[in-house]
Amino acid sequence: MILRRGKPSLYSTIRHFSSRRAVIYSDTGDPAQVLSVSKIAPLPDSVPPGHIGIKLLLSPINPADLNVVQGVYPSKPTIRDDLGTPSPAFIGGNEGVGQVERVGSNVTELTVGDWVVMTKPQSGTWASHAYLEPKDVTKVDKRVGETRAATITVNPPTARGMLSDFRTLSSGDYVIQNGANSAVGQAVIQIAAARNLKTINVIRDRPDLNELKKYLVSLGATHVITEQELADKSMRTKVKEWTQGKEIKLGLNCVGGEPTTILAKYLGHDAALVSYGAMSKKPISLPTSLFIFKNLTLYGYWQRRWYETHTPEERQSMLQDIIHLMIAGKLKAPEHEVLTLPESDEEATRTLREKLQQIDAGRYGKKLLLRFN
Amino acid sequence: MILRRGKPSLYSTIRHFSSRRAVIYSDTGDPAQVLSVSKIAPLPDSVPPGHIGIKLLLSPINPADLNVVQGVYPSKPTIRDDLGTPSPAFIGGNEGVGQVERVGSNVTELTVGDWVVMTKPQSGTWASHAYLEPKDVTKVDKRVGETRAATITVNPPTARGMLSDFRTLSSGDYVIQNGANSAVGQAVIQIAAARNLKTINVIRDRPDLNELKKYLVSLGATHVITEQELADKSMRTKVKEWTQGKEIKLGLNCVGGEPTTILAKYLGHDAALVSYGAMSKKPISLPTSLFIFKNLTLYGYWQRRWYETHTPEERQSMLQDIIHLMIAGKLKAPEHEVLTLPESDEEATRTLREKLQQIDAGRYGKKLLLRFN
Repeated sequence: MILRRGKPSLYSTIRHFSSRRAVIYSDTGDPAQVLSVSKIAPLPDSVPPGHIGIKLLLSPINPADLNVVQGVYPSKPTIRDDLGTPSPAFIGGNEGVGQVERVGSNVTELTVGDWVVMTKPQSGTWASHAYLEPKDVTKVDKRVGETRAATITVNPPTARGMLSDFRTLSSGDYVIQNGANSAVGQAVIQIAAARNLKTINVIRDRPDLNELKKYLVSLGATHVITEQELADKSMRTKVKEWTQGKEIKLGLNCVGGEPTTILAKYLGHDAALVSYGAMSKKPISLPTSLFIFKNLTLYGYWQRRWYETHTPEERQSMLQDIIHLMIAGKLKAPEHEVLTLPESDEEATRTLREKLQQIDAGRYGKKLLLRFN
Repeated sequence: MILRRGKPSLYSTIRHFSSRRAVIYSDTGDPAQVLSVSKIAPLPDSVPPGHIGIKLLLSPINPADLNVVQGVYPSKPTIRDDLGTPSPAFIGGNEGVGQVERVGSNVTELTVGDWVVMTKPQSGTWASHAYLEPKDVTKVDKRVGETRAATITVNPPTARGMLSDFRTLSSGDYVIQNGANSAVGQAVIQIAAARNLKTINVIRDRPDLNELKKYLVSLGATHVITEQELADKSMRTKVKEWTQGKEIKLGLNCVGGEPTTILAKYLGHDAALVSYGAMSKKPISLPTSLFIFKNLTLYGYWQRRWYETHTPEERQSMLQDIIHLMIAGKLKAPEHEVLTLPESDEEATRTLREKLQQIDAGRYGKKLLLRFN
């Protein structure tokens, strides 16, 4: 106790553990209406045996998190009656990086100062502090930095899984993807480039088109084209030139609707089209002939399923692969903005809701990350 | 030679080998316009070494055969300039049963009188006689009868392949299919029943609905419902009762469009939807959420690809499995009609084209089989 008091940073930590805050909601609905920043019940003064106490450093707001809040996502968080709130409430957030600040008895795998990310889904990461079990987190190398650590468990593994789990690709093979400027799309470009795979990246037309094209090329994109360019018949010839006639075996889709129908026609025999999102909110519509005669297979990808169907060792190994890429400078953080929540709950709630309204209006273009002070 | 002359049946055979006929076409197009029944160049009097001479007994007109004639099918027959026709021509037909009537030197695996079916695609089975290599045919047990032998290589293997190659099904598991009264659909019902699998069979509403329902149930269908019934929300509860809440892991589709969208929603987690036809001529349109969250996978099935990717031994073994089912009385011939072509080419052509027009008008409902006398 004397030692702790002697360290100002730990002293302030103790204060925070006993006065933690979180972004909570009691009922599902429009995030800009139902989410509030609120003080919640303090954690017990000493961390329970077999647990760690973490201070969350940075927690992203992913599109799927908002779907959870809306109540339209199949992953459901646990409603809690131990938060000291007037009615039972959820803590939002699935992803984030925390620093270990307390270690309970019987915990040997982690020590104070370590950084950890959540491997258990829907942990409620939009909070300042939490007590967790070591099995629900994975230690990350601090060299990746806060932003990449905070966004490491969903988007880069999705990109990696889609590039690995459906077709065997060799150096020089082409992959085609739409929504290429999404956080996953950016990770696809970089992981593909690190494996000497070529990418054709489809994006929507937009005012800052050339700037975005340049940015994606700087990440390693081989070609960046718009949906309109892809739909133009002359692109068939161009793509054949690019690929030197070699068939494209993997397509990645987060859009749906007509752009996906067009993309699918660029795929070769025995190709896989893997869908991980539906930005257009339109269904996937494809001619049956692609399936019968070209042997196209259409798969879905959900990182949560990957976590559920792999062992802790596989999960650990997968994250280490990504961490290595990051440390080697081959995988950057997505475009992002950090929102440091004001000290006043009222002001913090207002600020957060304003941001959520902007995100809801579409094309926010940056990943928003929450920080509690 | 004396022996041959002494047998009237062989004597007539000899006459036919030297005056064979076929259903031919010089240019692709509307089958009812481009197909003609015609005498074609006689085969050499003696069968070449390593070949067999067969008299075709019965050859079906499958929908895919008509697509080949229309020039819209990826399988292309070989155009031939050895038929004695004014311009090079194709012989139509992919499937059929023939009786071996001549055996060339070096052929040991087949003898006169054997029945064979084609294992090489687009062999041109709409003919009275042919010389073939033994590697391009498979012997069939005569106990299956002419009709089942003539229709054994495409539809029953498609049903068998779709039931076997995508998901592991156990006794009591449910399969759902549309176009259940198609020749493949009927084979699915019977092969599934032989394996103790339950089937939910979706058909279009029609005047003789009850009769068809009864017929499919007599084949082994567990449930037969219309597209309208499937679309009604009350069917969700009924299907749950039928399956006792067990998830359906396999759906078979030959329709496309809205009925397939509706069918897909009845599939459980990790299910396969296998498409082998597009009767509605509409694309398959499915919400992305089925792929991401329920892990639906959408495959195509083409029996030709199966033949191309399996060894002769596997092909032989697959056909023997089907033959065993047939001999055991567990797999009937599809509803069919035999068209014996008149002796006059002109009359034969007129009769054939009339039938083709009826088929083109849709809902012919029976498989048409050609017989040359």
